[in-house]
Amino acid sequence: MSTKGNCIVGQSGGTTAAINASLCGVVQEAMQNKEIGKIYGAINGIEGVLKEKFIDLGVLADKVDFLPALKNTPASYLGSCRFKLPKIAENRAIFEEIFKIFFAYQIKYFFYIGGNDSMDTVAKISAYAKEIGYPISIIGVPKTIDNDLLGTDHTPGYGSAAKYIATTVREIGIDCDVYDLNSVTIVEIMGRNAGWLTAASALARAEGLLAPHLIYLPETPFNDEQFIKDIKTLQNRGIRNVVVAVSEGVRYADGTYVCENASSGMTDAFGHKCLSGTAKVLENRVRSLLGCKARGVEVNVIQRCAGHLTSLTDISESEQIGIQAVKEAIAGSTGKIMVFKRLCDKPYQVTIESKDIEGIANGEKIIPTEWIAKEGNDVTQAFVDYAMPLIMGETTPQFKDGVPVYLKRS
Amino acid sequence: MSTKGNCIVGQSGGTTAAINASLCGVVQEAMQNKEIGKIYGAINGIEGVLKEKFIDLGVLADKVDFLPALKNTPASYLGSCRFKLPKIAENRAIFEEIFKIFFAYQIKYFFYIGGNDSMDTVAKISAYAKEIGYPISIIGVPKTIDNDLLGTDHTPGYGSAAKYIATTVREIGIDCDVYDLNSVTIVEIMGRNAGWLTAASALARAEGLLAPHLIYLPETPFNDEQFIKDIKTLQNRGIRNVVVAVSEGVRYADGTYVCENASSGMTDAFGHKCLSGTAKVLENRVRSLLGCKARGVEVNVIQRCAGHLTSLTDISESEQIGIQAVKEAIAGSTGKIMVFKRLCDKPYQVTIESKDIEGIANGEKIIPTEWIAKEGNDVTQAFVDYAMPLIMGETTPQFKDGVPVYLKRS
Repeated sequence: MSTKGNCIVGQSGGTTAAINASLCGVVQEAMQNKEIGKIYGAINGIEGVLKEKFIDLGVLADKVDFLPALKNTPASYLGSCRFKLPKIAENRAIFEEIFKIFFAYQIKYFFYIGGNDSMDTVAKISAYAKEIGYPISIIGVPKTIDNDLLGTDHTPGYGSAAKYIATTVREIGIDCDVYDLNSVTIVEIMGRNAGWLTAASALARAEGLLAPHLIYLPETPFNDEQFIKDIKTLQNRGIRNVVVAVSEGVRYADGTYVCENASSGMTDAFGHKCLSGTAKVLENRVRSLLGCKARGVEVNVIQRCAGHLTSLTDISESEQIGIQAVKEAIAGSTGKIMVFKRLCDKPYQVTIESKDIEGIANGEKIIPTEWIAKEGNDVTQAFVDYAMPLIMGETTPQFKDGVPVYLKRS
Repeated sequence: MSTKGNCIVGQSGGTTAAINASLCGVVQEAMQNKEIGKIYGAINGIEGVLKEKFIDLGVLADKVDFLPALKNTPASYLGSCRFKLPKIAENRAIFEEIFKIFFAYQIKYFFYIGGNDSMDTVAKISAYAKEIGYPISIIGVPKTIDNDLLGTDHTPGYGSAAKYIATTVREIGIDCDVYDLNSVTIVEIMGRNAGWLTAASALARAEGLLAPHLIYLPETPFNDEQFIKDIKTLQNRGIRNVVVAVSEGVRYADGTYVCENASSGMTDAFGHKCLSGTAKVLENRVRSLLGCKARGVEVNVIQRCAGHLTSLTDISESEQIGIQAVKEAIAGSTGKIMVFKRLCDKPYQVTIESKDIEGIANGEKIIPTEWIAKEGNDVTQAFVDYAMPLIMGETTPQFKDGVPVYLKRS
């Protein structure tokens, strides 16, 4: 089906530190390819397609500094959206609109870099194209710090977020260990249903530094009594400064989130209840039940956009998967998602393949039970063996005036 | 007064990413000096002195990797304390105890690396030594991320925290700018009374990236109406994703903290109120009054222990000030604090001097009024000229297994 034509690339969903590396890969490979004419970047994902908001990435990438700077810039250079396409049967008009635009711009290749919801967009547009017999290659390029996409060994973006989390938890562990008193520090890490990011905190442990001492994931029901007991056990073993890594999404056996309905009971000047996060709830619990110093630390958005500390493995792979997506499209594929297949842990080896998008979009991959300690308060060595290769190596972002050089769309 | 004898070095107060660089400087210089015999490290500051908990730093530093690794390890290698000495007249026994230990260990040099409260310890011990005529050199080596010590151009540790904050706010600014909607992101930065750290977020602005758009400091009374008006003004000017940097310690004209109702009401050993939740309070206010997406981000402890992203200028200066402290002691000084004196902004030049500790301990340096925008929502260029040199340059921490190599006291 390989046909000469233009391409559109878009980014969608939450940000990562590696999503622009994938964009880089797509642009690089598309520029080298004679089948592809113009390389349009859709501003704010599929919304940009619908509004015909495009920039000419081919022109930008002709500047010598553009691609290297893009590769190290976190978040979505093209902007993102959380727009979810309706089912085709529910609203054919919107699909007609998209393909009218594809036709007008002579689009033969569409690359969409995103997470679960974005892959749903890829699936629906691919299905519609097939239905109307429109000649176009539509390829999904995965990205999500959450690592919760089905069909791939891991997702681009996860390794960098994992490296940032492991490093940060390692530093928090050192920070809270300086006082000669009992303390509990609870680090809240992103992850509603899948604990991949929180689990990555286990990589903080090395060379005598043992934090985090406890890890709680959404995959295992949370139990208040067991949590306090786990801390007491550590304190009884002489560990004075306990560090706990906890997913924002931990919940009780009945399905309610630990942070649900949890209000500090305080109100602001306007009478609004101050809602607390998971770390804050557990901090208060520890303080009142154990009477020791307790502190909740929410790593928050910083974990997904820390361009100053990324995994070289992740950035390189993210670029490669973008390159492979273009090759796949040129080879005539459509309705596919590019995925990593791991060949070996030690030495780490992966290969990039494509899979049918159907059955991958809208799924959610959680941590396998055998990678979680049976006590539900840690991960096993098998998880560490899986995750460590993904955080290996450091990129060297350029700095100017003391801060990293990042690209901004003008 | 230079006399052959042993030395003790201790660390006290909150952690920084540069406090071990100063320890490194002290140890290096002490090792080279024939006047100094053993180099004792007091575990947990003055508490370690009282408990005679010492380690032999001279022996450790003989290992070739020790000092380079120590220099890049954040937080206090020797452990810290928040122990406040009483007034001499109130409890002479504790001072007698300290000097009995100094005598037993033949201590002629005492170096104390710390912030405001630690300099109070230096002042009291110096005063007592003078009173009893004990021949000892007592030198304070400043450190605090807060940059709020009197008598010095800036404090060791500030530059690295400032660099981390500037970088992080820059990344948050990129992260929250990817969606095509109005949003307000409020980044809460440490600082109870002095806004130096929050002000450093201004250094995030470079090359088209304008976040943070507003900066609120404890030096200026906070006004709810003006805050909402400031955001509206920016939104009316077409800035969709507004980033606000705010000190944890911002308060209203009547002196109550913005977070007062939301905080735990707890105080630390020095009677300082434990503040947290300012960002959360403002997030709720923005959401209810402006109806747009709002998010509070607390940078929290991570800003003071991010050994993976430190300022080369800060680390080098912190080491130098440790070296100079030893030289000052050998030259016969006592009851002094080492300080930086700035000679020039461009090109940046500083020199290290000593000052009498009396009058410096327990003071607090806030940002001069002329460095704060008269609207109270930003800093001026003069602040930027002051702060930028302090964040220049990057260190290159070693990584192993994907995370930084840090030293742990065994």
